[in-house]
Amino acid sequence: MVMDKGLSLRQTEDFIEVAGVHTDIVKLGWATSFVTPNLKEKLAIYRDAGIPTYFGGTLFEAFAIRNQFDDYRRVLDQFNMEYAEVSDGSITIEHDLKCEFIRKLSTQVTVISEVGSKDAAKIFAPYKWIKLMNAEIEAGSWKVIAEAREGGNVGIYRGSGEVREGLVDEILTQIPEETIIWEAPQKEQQVWFIKLLGANVNLGNIAPAETIPLETIRLGLRGDTFDHFLNLDKL
Amino acid sequence: MVMDKGLSLRQTEDFIEVAGVHTDIVKLGWATSFVTPNLKEKLAIYRDAGIPTYFGGTLFEAFAIRNQFDDYRRVLDQFNMEYAEVSDGSITIEHDLKCEFIRKLSTQVTVISEVGSKDAAKIFAPYKWIKLMNAEIEAGSWKVIAEAREGGNVGIYRGSGEVREGLVDEILTQIPEETIIWEAPQKEQQVWFIKLLGANVNLGNIAPAETIPLETIRLGLRGDTFDHFLNLDKL
Amino acid sequence: MVMDKGLSLRQTEDFIEVAGVHTDIVKLGWATSFVTPNLKEKLAIYRDAGIPTYFGGTLFEAFAIRNQFDDYRRVLDQFNMEYAEVSDGSITIEHDLKCEFIRKLSTQVTVISEVGSKDAAKIFAPYKWIKLMNAEIEAGSWKVIAEAREGGNVGIYRGSGEVREGLVDEILTQIPEETIIWEAPQKEQQVWFIKLLGANVNLGNIAPAETIPLETIRLGLRGDTFDHFLNLDKL
Repeated sequence: MVMDKGLSLRQTEDFIEVAGVHTDIVKLGWATSFVTPNLKEKLAIYRDAGIPTYFGGTLFEAFAIRNQFDDYRRVLDQFNMEYAEVSDGSITIEHDLKCEFIRKLSTQVTVISEVGSKDAAKIFAPYKWIKLMNAEIEAGSWKVIAEAREGGNVGIYRGSGEVREGLVDEILTQIPEETIIWEAPQKEQQVWFIKLLGANVNLGNIAPAETIPLETIRLGLRGDTFDHFLNLDKL
Repeated sequence: MVMDKGLSLRQTEDFIEVAGVHTDIVKLGWATSFVTPNLKEKLAIYRDAGIPTYFGGTLFEAFAIRNQFDDYRRVLDQFNMEYAEVSDGSITIEHDLKCEFIRKLSTQVTVISEVGSKDAAKIFAPYKWIKLMNAEIEAGSWKVIAEAREGGNVGIYRGSGEVREGLVDEILTQIPEETIIWEAPQKEQQVWFIKLLGANVNLGNIAPAETIPLETIRLGLRGDTFDHFLNLDKL
Repeated sequence: MVMDKGLSLRQTEDFIEVAGVHTDIVKLGWATSFVTPNLKEKLAIYRDAGIPTYFGGTLFEAFAIRNQFDDYRRVLDQFNMEYAEVSDGSITIEHDLKCEFIRKLSTQVTVISEVGSKDAAKIFAPYKWIKLMNAEIEAGSWKVIAEAREGGNVGIYRGSGEVREGLVDEILTQIPEETIIWEAPQKEQQVWFIKLLGANVNLGNIAPAETIPLETIRLGLRGDTFDHFLNLDKL
């Protein structure tokens, strides 16, 4: 999952030329879509390339907090969106209500929901992460995202960007790995997850220009994972 | 104020497509204009988009220190510049002489002058910042810029990038807010000034690719300011 | 030496438009060339601009460790490469064998060899750096590269990015300066080498968008070196 936070139309084409084949889905970061002048044309470029897109959860939250959920559903239709994110990174709502949003939206689009706050001070215990993820999957989420922001310094990471390893281990005892997208904007974070879960682990918030570098890490063709996939005995 | 430190012609067009409407003015960072091969064409692209431009102060200083101020005035005419920066970030000159440069240039172009050294070791007391800013405004500056460099780690910031809050508060008791452009290349710095002075605060040294993200912060559509402008009682 | 880690064809043209004239050679970073869909076209664009290119050493290492050195030689021919890098940043091989690779490859292309590990934990004493560099030059290397990675935080730098000054000084007592390319992705590292060795020092791993900024540092047209080349007595 690559994060587009304001590419021009030509830059979108350039990204697809270079890394489209390595990209499963593109998120238009947080509410940047709201101030993107070329939104329809951009979405058409991604669509023509066969890459699905969705609006970042902050846009959903901006409508939800204003009691405009139905307006948001119309926005999704207006732009022919096939995916949507439901998150509560910037708002505080009852989890039942969040799951209700997921339930309703999942009748309209494929829902990705995000767990974790954008506020570095709000830290959940592992059992809480698992409970929230399970409830959201049950409510209809196709994948759950583990929050990290563009910076990679909240949620599943410490302020320094270091992975909360115990948290990740515990989540993985209860939630199927293929159901989770780990936001991992920093190289060390990508390397850590690839070493733990293999070349095809779902990673998110990848900057467009980092998609090729990430692919080399997945393939064991960068120093960081060069040894990891190489079975020297077989050579 | 966005800083262009070497965009190609196509990249300039891409930037304008995406963020031209959110940009008041573009600075060609420090003396990069001097080594930009496509300078005339680039300036024409900005001009056609209605976005004024100016050369970074270091170019002015490079001429001034060589006693070529009149040559610099000819350069400004040669490129039909309507704005110019007067600064002393890399040179040491009497402040009276700096004000004399401002006075002379302001008969030719709209002058933006910059206060603060690029040298992290040169720290002024608040009363000095105020005195310098006032004298430069009186000499003819349209706006004064509070120095931070591209990195955002000198002048009004500590080496860590943290705002010198007391300094900013004190400056604001004496200098009209609309007369100041705060260089704020880092996201946390932008957030800090927007929370202090509102959505329309003058910010500078914004990287082209960060213009859309900044606009979402101004609008309360990113986690950092999501709550700040939202009057939940009204909902 | 500029590092291209996945530019599109248009971005390659844009880079050349802006900074081609300031660029001696381009490295396709580590093994990114292996996952670049437009490789032949990209190499043709650089060739037409008169800028030589080479594949990062990690690609060589990926072939070498699989006992496919002859295949690598065919790859170089297939893409009409005139330069190649021999490195051991991610593999552990006898230095005699590395020199043998250099010797063989230098009959086919101009060889650049790299000294230093990508592993931050592997630190060599200065005499070892000198011994390795001398042996590689003798084996046929045109230039030797002092390793730093894309991040600039290993090899000749500390984890913080700070230069290992004693190491550099000692290397320079034994190896001709013009034979060394110093990887220097961070601005402070570039400034440090330019102050030590002058405007034309060989620097590597420069990000495409940093080529114009670097040129201003070389020319004394950025704050960091503004005073350094300026003989004020002559003015």
